[in-house]
Amino acid sequence: MKFDQTAKIASFGGQLVKLSHESSTLKCKMDLNVYFPPGSFATASSSIASFPILYFLSGLTCTGNNCAEKGFLQPWAAKHGIIIVYPDTSPRGCNIEGEEESWDFGTGAGFYLNATKVPWKTNYNMYDYIVEELPQLLYGSFKQMDPTRVSIMGHSMGGHGALVIYLKNSEKYKSCSAFSPISNPMQCPWGKKAFSSYLGSVNEWSQYDATELIKYYNGENTSDILIDIGTGDSFYKDQQLLPENFVAASKKSKYKGDVKLRLQDDYDHSYYFISSFAADHLEHHARYLV
Amino acid sequence: MKFDQTAKIASFGGQLVKLSHESSTLKCKMDLNVYFPPGSFATASSSIASFPILYFLSGLTCTGNNCAEKGFLQPWAAKHGIIIVYPDTSPRGCNIEGEEESWDFGTGAGFYLNATKVPWKTNYNMYDYIVEELPQLLYGSFKQMDPTRVSIMGHSMGGHGALVIYLKNSEKYKSCSAFSPISNPMQCPWGKKAFSSYLGSVNEWSQYDATELIKYYNGENTSDILIDIGTGDSFYKDQQLLPENFVAASKKSKYKGDVKLRLQDDYDHSYYFISSFAADHLEHHARYLV
Repeated sequence: MKFDQTAKIASFGGQLVKLSHESSTLKCKMDLNVYFPPGSFATASSSIASFPILYFLSGLTCTGNNCAEKGFLQPWAAKHGIIIVYPDTSPRGCNIEGEEESWDFGTGAGFYLNATKVPWKTNYNMYDYIVEELPQLLYGSFKQMDPTRVSIMGHSMGGHGALVIYLKNSEKYKSCSAFSPISNPMQCPWGKKAFSSYLGSVNEWSQYDATELIKYYNGENTSDILIDIGTGDSFYKDQQLLPENFVAASKKSKYKGDVKLRLQDDYDHSYYFISSFAADHLEHHARYLV
Repeated sequence: MKFDQTAKIASFGGQLVKLSHESSTLKCKMDLNVYFPPGSFATASSSIASFPILYFLSGLTCTGNNCAEKGFLQPWAAKHGIIIVYPDTSPRGCNIEGEEESWDFGTGAGFYLNATKVPWKTNYNMYDYIVEELPQLLYGSFKQMDPTRVSIMGHSMGGHGALVIYLKNSEKYKSCSAFSPISNPMQCPWGKKAFSSYLGSVNEWSQYDATELIKYYNGENTSDILIDIGTGDSFYKDQQLLPENFVAASKKSKYKGDVKLRLQDDYDHSYYFISSFAADHLEHHARYLV
């Protein structure tokens, strides 16, 4: 076990486990939460079963705690028998100048990319952390996890992360969904701010833009992608999310699954929105995982 | 409308409304949340329907926000068509000496009683606020609320509040339930600390102790009372909750309903516990309200 377990909390018949570990990719200590559905732990009368895994990538300012407390994914993960991994959103405490100055850049805002610019490139490698290091550590530590059945979802900046990671590695993930994703970061203020500081050329930027990635998709995955956006979401209205650009690009691409964009009347950008439609997203992933 | 509406947030097909008002009982400004299930607001094609009301009283240190964000009562309130009122747990900002010194006394710890001792008695009258002032203001402002169908529940200190208020006014409430209630405060450290500062004689104390109140119950309500306690709850193990005393007293009393105490294996005192069994509690109340 490469993790320290700091808490284990009963939730919907399963267990929410709080973990901490040293990340070699990020060069700092990282916390995360993992929800194990009922039956995940061996008892005197049962051996350990094997469960599919769903990553939930959180948005700006969040840690792995917010959605574990307020997202309401756990009842449906318990119902479908799915493990949920809630990672953090950036390296922490790296003492980089400017790291704590903005709520939408630096700490809490890693944007799920590998930075190439000084001073960020030493630590800000959330892409490799989520795609490579964390899965290896988890699958080596928890026999309950089935590495052949893995999906990914996220919210806002984490919706961007989920779409990008899925499209770049669609052989590794069975399905993808997102709440309020930053769908075309090269064209919105949040993305321009982050990418211009973390990354170099526009060619680098396009490697982390879901709308660009789906245009040139040449993988084999045919799963539908489910996206929910609230019509009362002020960031949607302010053109930070741009999901229509992603849908338009998908229609001209070789991606064979449907991109199902649902506009949910009056909902905002908060966990009140996520919790209200969490059942639909877990059902979406269960179609491909269970 | 005696309230200022500070926010209206879509949640599970209904609306969570954030309200603020001046309380004459508490002599300060108070915030609360009210969840309105789907169909609570008139549209061009429909008039306003009438819904039953469930009060949720929160525990030590909480405001009306915690359970609205983390308790997950709303999906089941939406399903059964029940309005939920989430009041605050004490007066706020009264500038009483000592008010902010403890997490289990003063601010965030009003114990749902009417204080009789100086300096608390001017403001700390949460009992009258919850039983009299707040319902009158709400029912005068929201035609969706049906004052003839009202129930009450709570958590920890709020479980104490719900049991006490129900037993003293069982003609006003159709049903009662509690998570992890402080069930016999005269016999536990939290209760002794609070009652000795807020109240005078032991006779006064017994008016706010559910175990004492059920002993002498002489009302007509025959509803079952549902109580959930987690066996991993450190406050339960530390004898702060004492639900067995309440059950024992109920068996010797004239209370005609069953007191259903359920010990939930491994659960703690947190909102992870409440959310896991929220569906059962809403179903309990729906039996009497809908």
